[in-house]
Amino acid sequence: MPLLVMKFGGTSVANIDRIRRAAKRVGVEVARGYDVIVIVSAMSGKTNELVGWVNETAPFYDAREYDAVVSSGENVTAGLMALTLQEMDVPARSWQGWQVPLRTNSAHSAARIESIPTENITSKFAQGMRVAVIAGFQGISPENRITTLGRGGSDTTAVAFAAAFGAERCDIYTDVDGVYTTDPRIASKARKLDRIAFEEMLELASLGAKVLQTRSVELAMRYNVKLRVLSSFGEQSDEAGTLVCSEEDIVESNVVNGIAYSRDEAKMTLVSVADRPGIAAAIFGPLSDAGVNVDMIIQNISEEGRTDMTFSCPVDQVKRAERALSEAKAAGELNFHDLIADTDVAKISAVGIGMRSQSGVAARMFRTLRDEGINIKVIATSEIKISVLIDRKYMELAVQALHDAFELEKPG
Amino acid sequence: MPLLVMKFGGTSVANIDRIRRAAKRVGVEVARGYDVIVIVSAMSGKTNELVGWVNETAPFYDAREYDAVVSSGENVTAGLMALTLQEMDVPARSWQGWQVPLRTNSAHSAARIESIPTENITSKFAQGMRVAVIAGFQGISPENRITTLGRGGSDTTAVAFAAAFGAERCDIYTDVDGVYTTDPRIASKARKLDRIAFEEMLELASLGAKVLQTRSVELAMRYNVKLRVLSSFGEQSDEAGTLVCSEEDIVESNVVNGIAYSRDEAKMTLVSVADRPGIAAAIFGPLSDAGVNVDMIIQNISEEGRTDMTFSCPVDQVKRAERALSEAKAAGELNFHDLIADTDVAKISAVGIGMRSQSGVAARMFRTLRDEGINIKVIATSEIKISVLIDRKYMELAVQALHDAFELEKPG
Repeated sequence: MPLLVMKFGGTSVANIDRIRRAAKRVGVEVARGYDVIVIVSAMSGKTNELVGWVNETAPFYDAREYDAVVSSGENVTAGLMALTLQEMDVPARSWQGWQVPLRTNSAHSAARIESIPTENITSKFAQGMRVAVIAGFQGISPENRITTLGRGGSDTTAVAFAAAFGAERCDIYTDVDGVYTTDPRIASKARKLDRIAFEEMLELASLGAKVLQTRSVELAMRYNVKLRVLSSFGEQSDEAGTLVCSEEDIVESNVVNGIAYSRDEAKMTLVSVADRPGIAAAIFGPLSDAGVNVDMIIQNISEEGRTDMTFSCPVDQVKRAERALSEAKAAGELNFHDLIADTDVAKISAVGIGMRSQSGVAARMFRTLRDEGINIKVIATSEIKISVLIDRKYMELAVQALHDAFELEKPG
Repeated sequence: MPLLVMKFGGTSVANIDRIRRAAKRVGVEVARGYDVIVIVSAMSGKTNELVGWVNETAPFYDAREYDAVVSSGENVTAGLMALTLQEMDVPARSWQGWQVPLRTNSAHSAARIESIPTENITSKFAQGMRVAVIAGFQGISPENRITTLGRGGSDTTAVAFAAAFGAERCDIYTDVDGVYTTDPRIASKARKLDRIAFEEMLELASLGAKVLQTRSVELAMRYNVKLRVLSSFGEQSDEAGTLVCSEEDIVESNVVNGIAYSRDEAKMTLVSVADRPGIAAAIFGPLSDAGVNVDMIIQNISEEGRTDMTFSCPVDQVKRAERALSEAKAAGELNFHDLIADTDVAKISAVGIGMRSQSGVAARMFRTLRDEGINIKVIATSEIKISVLIDRKYMELAVQALHDAFELEKPG
């Protein structure tokens, strides 16, 4: 029988009524002839409650115990979902991570999946079971301890199961009805995309359009798992939501498919750094050690052996960055005149696989911003993305103007 | 190193502060040189929340899924307890039932423990771990599914670990400070017992003094595990609480050690039953099939081939008993003139291993009740117990009078 993976996030299983509603959607696919693997998150709020207890108990906790505690929320939902399906006369049972067993490495709280044996579950399907309900977000380490996969880990669990079982598709049910060209709260003309390429989704996800966890998209891309994002509360059909798929499955596409933004950026400039070989390593080594996520980097033209170095990072890491760089200076590993932090910037990115084959996208982007009187502070580009840092107060205006300029309200 | 098992019930781990307080008690034993196995229940209220969800989801639930859901509360406490101990610099880690693995049979929700391998935990003790924290109440079946041990299952887990590891003692921390000669709310002279024999404890527990789960006492008796009941909130010393132990460890004892009562009893009389061989089976077979817990049974002297049969059962099972007997009558399997239910009775029991060697206990009990003008409706005796059914309105009076008559306020 064809197999489908369906994943329900925390808001989709927030209480018994919601679990019933989700189970009905599973029942529809079973009635259509699919065997289904359902991946569930914890009921919304439950994981936060557990994390709160751990933090109250031990601010510097043993990640192995943390994982043992926080994974319990998914186990509850898995059992309740199986019971709900049984009540609907759908043969179902639950599996916890260790029962599959979903094996991971030992990187507790951010573990990576190593293997998912299929025999156990496949044999139950062969015996007439129609739905296997899997507690998401968790696995076991080589030491037989419970691991968790980190933020959004249930998405990753879902994609990994879809890959392991060769599922026809992996449907991610969430509280939004798909992936939009940009945030509809900012640009009212934002349009839901029917399809989007894995690469575009990765750029949009990491840039702040937080619909799918980045790792799950990477995994789907690697194993070419068709991934669909749709709402638990909207219509249910094969055309609902947004299909995240490989480029080849997208016939026609706009040159730009999405405008992403990130509000909480900071721009930091090291003024008058000695421009010598190894200087980048001397700056970004300490930052990396301090856990600062450096995003964009630019180096100004060198004058008389000295240069300015500018980078961006999340605004809440500015203090950490300043401390790391000051310490490196004090230790004599680095020399600069001044360190200037601009904490009032936002990042705007235009993303589209069409950029690969079409030129002039950057020019159109810069012209659009100029016409609105918006100054560009930093520019970075990749094959399918152009990002700029601007003053935060212009963020909404920039998103709207670019959405209009690239005509994203029109289907590609 | 000598080993101790310490078990903390739901109220003793109800929140992070209580878990800390419990952990401090564990720390005291570790400082005294013990390795400790800690068994924890779910935080109070949590198991009820989970059971509530299951019942809301599926009134006639699959017990395997029920067990998977309700066992999760203990996992949370186990992790939090391990973290708390680590914060106190006590080397500790948690084990869930499947990690031990605590193997049970497949009787979900009322599983029986089959084996507890010790190598894994013993080797961690050898490596310097001082406390193993075990999630109580749970195990795994031969089918690798989670089982639970039923009501009070964490007590049973604790005793089973104490037996498997040859612990010096098994301390059950709860919200009462020991076993009393009777309920202090009824008889103000009630005295805490320093020691009580397993057999006495079993009679007291099953009669309504609900301090320890019956199965845990049976298990302790079978493996001769010294069991101590004490409060999480009182003093901590080797003399605190009540030691439940074998008769040989009790030097001197009163002839009666406890007066137990049960308020919710009913007395049922089948009037004029044909007195023929097999009649008891014809009556008590259907009652057993209907799940009625028959306690005391008396048969009156037969006259002209007919007799009256009286039995007691919990008052909330009266309707079920009436239905079962009426159906048996309608089916022609049983013949009686009338069925009279007296739902206003209570059971009072005097319990003591001293009865074995001393006579006149029953006579003293009956005389005491007579002097108070209390009519005895049914009498039943065992080697170490005499029970009577009386009108419920006399229950408190009877308990007080018997407590005085047997001088239970004085240490044995």
